[in-house]
Amino acid sequence: MSTDTAPIRLGMVGGGQGAFMGQVHRIAARLDGRYQLVAGALSSRADVSLASGRALGLDPARVYVDFAEMARSEAARADGIEAVAIVTPNHLHFAPAKVFLEAGIHVICDKPLTARMDEAAALSEIAAGAEARFLLTHTYAGYPLVRQARAMVEAGELGQIRFVEARYAQDWLTEPTGDGNKQAAWRTDPAKAGAGGAIGDIGTHAWHLARFVTGLELEAVAADLAAFVPGRRVDDHAQAMLRFRGGAKGMFWVSQVAVGSENALSLRVVGEKASLEWAQEDPNRLCFARFGYPKQTLTRGGPAPGGAIPGRIPPGHPEGYLEAFSALYDDFATVIRGGTPPVPLPSVADGLDGMRFISACLASSAADAAWTTLEDCAGA
Amino acid sequence: MSTDTAPIRLGMVGGGQGAFMGQVHRIAARLDGRYQLVAGALSSRADVSLASGRALGLDPARVYVDFAEMARSEAARADGIEAVAIVTPNHLHFAPAKVFLEAGIHVICDKPLTARMDEAAALSEIAAGAEARFLLTHTYAGYPLVRQARAMVEAGELGQIRFVEARYAQDWLTEPTGDGNKQAAWRTDPAKAGAGGAIGDIGTHAWHLARFVTGLELEAVAADLAAFVPGRRVDDHAQAMLRFRGGAKGMFWVSQVAVGSENALSLRVVGEKASLEWAQEDPNRLCFARFGYPKQTLTRGGPAPGGAIPGRIPPGHPEGYLEAFSALYDDFATVIRGGTPPVPLPSVADGLDGMRFISACLASSAADAAWTTLEDCAGA
Amino acid sequence: MSTDTAPIRLGMVGGGQGAFMGQVHRIAARLDGRYQLVAGALSSRADVSLASGRALGLDPARVYVDFAEMARSEAARADGIEAVAIVTPNHLHFAPAKVFLEAGIHVICDKPLTARMDEAAALSEIAAGAEARFLLTHTYAGYPLVRQARAMVEAGELGQIRFVEARYAQDWLTEPTGDGNKQAAWRTDPAKAGAGGAIGDIGTHAWHLARFVTGLELEAVAADLAAFVPGRRVDDHAQAMLRFRGGAKGMFWVSQVAVGSENALSLRVVGEKASLEWAQEDPNRLCFARFGYPKQTLTRGGPAPGGAIPGRIPPGHPEGYLEAFSALYDDFATVIRGGTPPVPLPSVADGLDGMRFISACLASSAADAAWTTLEDCAGA
Amino acid sequence: MSTDTAPIRLGMVGGGQGAFMGQVHRIAARLDGRYQLVAGALSSRADVSLASGRALGLDPARVYVDFAEMARSEAARADGIEAVAIVTPNHLHFAPAKVFLEAGIHVICDKPLTARMDEAAALSEIAAGAEARFLLTHTYAGYPLVRQARAMVEAGELGQIRFVEARYAQDWLTEPTGDGNKQAAWRTDPAKAGAGGAIGDIGTHAWHLARFVTGLELEAVAADLAAFVPGRRVDDHAQAMLRFRGGAKGMFWVSQVAVGSENALSLRVVGEKASLEWAQEDPNRLCFARFGYPKQTLTRGGPAPGGAIPGRIPPGHPEGYLEAFSALYDDFATVIRGGTPPVPLPSVADGLDGMRFISACLASSAADAAWTTLEDCAGA
Repeated sequence: MSTDTAPIRLGMVGGGQGAFMGQVHRIAARLDGRYQLVAGALSSRADVSLASGRALGLDPARVYVDFAEMARSEAARADGIEAVAIVTPNHLHFAPAKVFLEAGIHVICDKPLTARMDEAAALSEIAAGAEARFLLTHTYAGYPLVRQARAMVEAGELGQIRFVEARYAQDWLTEPTGDGNKQAAWRTDPAKAGAGGAIGDIGTHAWHLARFVTGLELEAVAADLAAFVPGRRVDDHAQAMLRFRGGAKGMFWVSQVAVGSENALSLRVVGEKASLEWAQEDPNRLCFARFGYPKQTLTRGGPAPGGAIPGRIPPGHPEGYLEAFSALYDDFATVIRGGTPPVPLPSVADGLDGMRFISACLASSAADAAWTTLEDCAGA
Repeated sequence: MSTDTAPIRLGMVGGGQGAFMGQVHRIAARLDGRYQLVAGALSSRADVSLASGRALGLDPARVYVDFAEMARSEAARADGIEAVAIVTPNHLHFAPAKVFLEAGIHVICDKPLTARMDEAAALSEIAAGAEARFLLTHTYAGYPLVRQARAMVEAGELGQIRFVEARYAQDWLTEPTGDGNKQAAWRTDPAKAGAGGAIGDIGTHAWHLARFVTGLELEAVAADLAAFVPGRRVDDHAQAMLRFRGGAKGMFWVSQVAVGSENALSLRVVGEKASLEWAQEDPNRLCFARFGYPKQTLTRGGPAPGGAIPGRIPPGHPEGYLEAFSALYDDFATVIRGGTPPVPLPSVADGLDGMRFISACLASSAADAAWTTLEDCAGA
Repeated sequence: MSTDTAPIRLGMVGGGQGAFMGQVHRIAARLDGRYQLVAGALSSRADVSLASGRALGLDPARVYVDFAEMARSEAARADGIEAVAIVTPNHLHFAPAKVFLEAGIHVICDKPLTARMDEAAALSEIAAGAEARFLLTHTYAGYPLVRQARAMVEAGELGQIRFVEARYAQDWLTEPTGDGNKQAAWRTDPAKAGAGGAIGDIGTHAWHLARFVTGLELEAVAADLAAFVPGRRVDDHAQAMLRFRGGAKGMFWVSQVAVGSENALSLRVVGEKASLEWAQEDPNRLCFARFGYPKQTLTRGGPAPGGAIPGRIPPGHPEGYLEAFSALYDDFATVIRGGTPPVPLPSVADGLDGMRFISACLASSAADAAWTTLEDCAGA
Repeated sequence: MSTDTAPIRLGMVGGGQGAFMGQVHRIAARLDGRYQLVAGALSSRADVSLASGRALGLDPARVYVDFAEMARSEAARADGIEAVAIVTPNHLHFAPAKVFLEAGIHVICDKPLTARMDEAAALSEIAAGAEARFLLTHTYAGYPLVRQARAMVEAGELGQIRFVEARYAQDWLTEPTGDGNKQAAWRTDPAKAGAGGAIGDIGTHAWHLARFVTGLELEAVAADLAAFVPGRRVDDHAQAMLRFRGGAKGMFWVSQVAVGSENALSLRVVGEKASLEWAQEDPNRLCFARFGYPKQTLTRGGPAPGGAIPGRIPPGHPEGYLEAFSALYDDFATVIRGGTPPVPLPSVADGLDGMRFISACLASSAADAAWTTLEDCAGA
C-alpha cells in the first residue's frame, strides 16, 4: 500500500446492477483506499445505468450510457477520471479499451483481453503507442503465495523446470443452462464470449498463472476440447499437453462440468531440484518440496526460502480472492502514480499471449489435437 | 450489502501509523463502500496523529489529538461523524467509548470490551441508556460459515448439544519479546491489556465464537493458566474445562506459545444427532457429520442443509479475515440506517459476557482450577 | 524383522468366532511370519472353542475350553506354546495372565491390563517375579511415525515440553446400544469392562500414546466424565486437564459419542522449540514445526531430522493399524528370542500406569474434577 | 476371508534376500492365513537361493535354483505347491509363468505381465488354454475404497462418465542413479524392464486403476514421453491424453522425477451426475460429489451410497498397501478353492491390455504424440 493520499479518480464501463464482475472490481478498487469511483457507463440501457449509478452514489451528471461519450466528457473535465475499469462481456472489451487509451485514460480491463484475435492484436498496437497504461485483471497474479512461487522459481530454488501442471475446474455448467442465468448466457454464446468457452473463460487464467510463475514460453500445444452438455455451442472442457521452449512439458485441464469443483484453479511446478504446488481454494498455503528433504508448507507471510512475501494481515488470518484482486488494483495505482510495482503486472502483452494460447488450443483441437504453436495463431 | 447510497461518516480513535488493527478496521470499513473515514484522533502524540491523518487524506481540521475534543467537535458539526471506530489498546477502550456514546455517536469497538471488569460493567450501563448503537468487533462472527454453523445449530440439525471444543492457538509469543515489538509490548503488559494475556487477547474470541454458534450459557469453568515464557507477567497459555447449563460440556484451549500455529482458531460442536467443525485458517469449509451418514464438507455459498449463507463472491473463491471483518461493518451500517442485521451482532452484552469469562478463568486459575461461575465474577 | 527362522509357537485365550480383537491379534502375529498359532482356549463354551479351532486349522487336541488346563498341558509338551495371546474382555485378563506367566509362558495381553486396580497391582508383582515376558498391546506404539515422534522428543528436537494434547474420539456409542452388539455389550457393562467406559476402553490408549512419545510423568489430573446416553452405566465421554512433573500441562479428551469420528486418536506435543502433531487416521504423516521455520510434513521412511524410522514398505505406500499391531508382535518376538527391541515395549508397568490413570480420572470426576494424583490411586 | 482351513501350498520364484517385492508378496500371502510358503526358486544364484530359503524356514529340499526344475519336482509331489508367486524383474515373468501354468500350478505374477508384447500375447494364449488360474497383482484393485468406487460407477451413481484423470507420481529417480540401487538398476534397463520406464513400471498401475474403476475402453491415446535425467535410457515421465469409446476423455500422467511425490497414485472420475476422487497415499477416504449436493467423504466401511465395502478392521483404523495386496491374495485363494471373488481379479487379459496400453503410448510418443489405438499395438 502506498502513501500517496489522493485517491485515483475511477470510472467504470459495465457493471450495472446484477453484474458480478463489476461488484468485484469496485470492492477491489476500494479495499486499499487508492481509488474513488466517480463516473460510469454502467449499462447500455439508460435506465439501468442511471439506477446503478444512483445506487453507487455517483453524480448523475457523470453517469453515461455511451462509453465513448464518457471518455470524451471525462477527458475534458479537470476532475475527470484518471482510470477506467472495463467489466463488460468479452466482446465488449476492445471498443472501450481503444477509446479510453486514446483519450489518455488508464485502462483496467477484465480478462480475456478481447473476444477475437484481430481485436487483441489491434489493441496491442494501440496500447504500445499510448501513454496511458493498461492492466489486465488476471486476479491470481495478486495472491501473495503465487508471487512467492514466482520469486522462488526466479531465484532458482527449483532448478531447471521439467513439468508444469495447470488446472482450473468448475462445475456450474454441468447441466444445460436456461436463459435465466445471465452469467451462463453470455459465457456460452460464441458471439459474446469469443470462440472458446471454458478455454477462454477460465483457461486464460490457468495459462497466465503458469506463465506468471514459471516464465516459460510455449513451444507447442496439443489440445482436445469438448462440449459435453448436449446443445452447448462452446467447449465446456479442454485438455491439452504442452511443450515449452527449453524442454519442459506440461499438462493443462480446464472444465466447467467437473462436478464437485467450485473454482479449483491449481498449479504444480516440478523442477530438477524442487517442486511447488498451489491451489486457489486454499490460497494461503504453498507446498514446497526439495528433493531429499521433508516437504514444507509455506504460509502467507510466514518463514520461507528467500524471505516471505507478506499480505495485508498477519499469517494465519486467511486472505482470499478479493485481496488478490485488490493487490492488482493497488499495484496499478503505484504504476499510475509513477512507481514500480513489486511484480510485472498483467498487461496487454499477457492478454495477447493468452488470446494466442486460446487460438492455438482451438486450432489444435480442430486439427485433432495436432501440435500447434502460438506463431501459428499470431495473425489468426 | 445494502442499497443505501450515502456512506456513513466515520471517525477513528487510535490506528495511527504502524498500528495493525487500525488498518484492518479501515479496510473493513471501506470494503463494502458504506463508510467514509472523515475524522480521527489517531494518536495521543500530536505529530503522529497529524501525519497519520495526512497519509489517510483526512482534512487536517478534523484530525485530533484528544478524542474527547473530537467527540465534542464532531457532534457539533452538521457533517460530523456518525460512527467512530475505537482501535486503541484494551485499557483505552472505556473512556472513548463512553464519550462517544454519550455524544450520540455510534461506536465500533475492538475487543475485548475493556481491560477491567468495572469498566465493562459501567460501559454496559452507559450503552443500555444510550441511543447510539455499539458494535464489538468479534471478527469471527462475520465469517459466512460461522453463521451457517449457527443457523444449523439453531435449526436443530445437531439435536441437543453434548460437547463444545474451542481453541485458539498462536505461536508469536513463543520466545521472550523485546521492546521492539509494539504489538507484543502492550499485549503482555497487564496495565494495558488487562489482567489476562492470551486469555484476554484471543480467549475472548474463542469464547465468543463458541457462544455465538451454540447459544449455550456457561454454568462453570475450571481453568488452568500458565506463563511459560520466563519473566512474562501475563498468561501465554490457558486451558479450561467448561460446563454449560443444560448438561453440555466443553474444552477450551488458547495459547500464544503453540509453535507452528499462526491463528488457529477452531470450533467443534458435537450434538446428539450431528457434529460441526470449523477452523479459521480454512474458513471456507465447514465439516458436518450426521450420525450414520457420510461426512459432508459444506462450502461458503454451496449447497447446505437449510440453505447456504452466501458471501460476496461465488463458492470456491476464498473469502478471508478482512471479508469477515467487513461483514460486521456492513451489518452495523444496516443497523445504523435502521435495518435489521442477518444475525445478532456482537454487542456490549457480549463484551461483558467475555469479560466475565476472562475473570472467571483468572479466578478459577488462581483457585487452583476450582469450578467458577460467571456470577462469581459479575461484580469483580 | 529378525532372521530367526523358527516361528514362535503361539496359543490364544479368547478370540473365538465373531470376536474382533482375536482376529486382529492373529493377523498381527502372522504378518511378519514369526509366530505360528498352534493352540487355543478360544471360548469358554466348548462347542464354540472347538468350531473356532477347527476354522483356524488347529489340532483338536490343542483346542481347550479351560485356559488353566491349556497352560498345564502346553507347558508339559515339548512342542508346547512359547507365548499366549490373551484377547478376552477386560475382566478376564488377570486370571489367564497369572496362570500363563506362572507356567513360564510369555504373555501378550490386550489392553487395559485388567478391569480392577487390585488385579493390576497383583499382576504387576507376578510379572516382576516371572521369567516369562509380558507385552501389553498398546497398538499405537507400533506406528513408525509415533516412534519417530518419540525419538525426536528424546533427541531434544522440541526442547522442554510445555503442552500435550491427547484425544481419542469415536462415535459408535452415540445412540443407546441394544443387546445385539457384542462389542458394545461388554464394553458398557462395568462388571466386564471395569469401572471406566470410554476412559478405560480408549482413554488408556490416548494416555499411553502421550506417555510413550513424551516420557512425561503425571503430577495430577482434573477429570470430568459423563455418560451422555440415557441409561448408560459407564462414561461415554471424558475430559481432563493434566499437570505433568516439570511444569508441562495437558488436555485430554476421549469420547465414544463424538459424531463423525471413527477412530480419531491424535496427539499434539508443543515444546519451547518445536511442535509435533500426529493422528491415527492419517498415520503416515507427522507434522513438525520448528519455531521460525516453515512447517514440515514428515512421512514414514522419508527424510527426517535425526533419520527416519522406516516401515516395511517404501514411503508413500500407506501402512496402517495392522502393521502397527504387527510391529509390537514382531518386536516382542525379538525379545522372546533374546534380542533388544527398537523401543521399550508396552509392559505391565505401562498397564499399571494406565490403570492408575483411569482410577485417578474416576476419582477426580467423582470429586467434582478435583486434582488427583496417581499415588492417590496406587492402592485403590 | 474364507472358512477353508487348509492353507494353499505356495512357492515363489524370485524374492531372494534384498528383493523388495518378494517380501511384500510373502506378507500379503500370510496376512489372511490362507497360504503357506513351502518352496522357492528364490534366486538364480544357488547360494543366495539357499540362504534365502533357510531364512524363510523352507525345507532345503524344496529350495531350487532353476524354476523349471521346481515346477517339475513340485508338480510330482503329493504335497507339491498349488500356486506360485512370480516376483522376478519384468523380463523374467514370461518363462516361469509359462512353465508353471503348463504344470497345472496356479500363478500369481507381479506386474507388468511381461517385458515384451509378443510374450504377453503368447502368455495370454497359454493361460486361456490352461486349467490353472492366473492372478496379476495390480495391488490397487485390492483397496476397499477402490472397489467402492468401482461399485458406485457400476451402479450408475455418476451417470455417464465424461472425464477420467489417472496419475502416478514418484520422485525416487529424480537424480541419476548409480549402480548401487538394485531397484533402480533393472527398472531403468530396457532389456530388463521392457521398452517403457515409468510408463511400464507405474503407468500400468494407473491405467489398470482407471479401467478397473470405470470399465471404460480406450479408443486412442496421444502420449508424450520424456527421459528428463541425462543418460537415462527409458522414460522417467509420461503424459498422455485419452479418448475412450463412448466419448469420455482422459488425462494421464506418470512420473518418477516428480519431486515431493512418494507413491502419489490418484484417480478422478467425473460423470454427468457426480464425481469421485481417490488417492493411494490417503486410501481410507473417497471423495464423492453429487451435482448440487454437499461433497461427501466416504470412509472404508463407513456409510456409503449402495452400502459400504468393508475392510478387515473397523472404520477409522487405517488399512494400507499390504492389506490391499493381501486382499488380492485372499480373493485368489477363494478362486483356487472354487469360489467366486467379490470383484473380477486382475488377469492375463488385464495384463495384455496394460501391455498394449504401454505399447500404444510408446508408439504414439515415437510418432510425436499422434493418436494411437490399442489395436495398432495388438501384434507389435
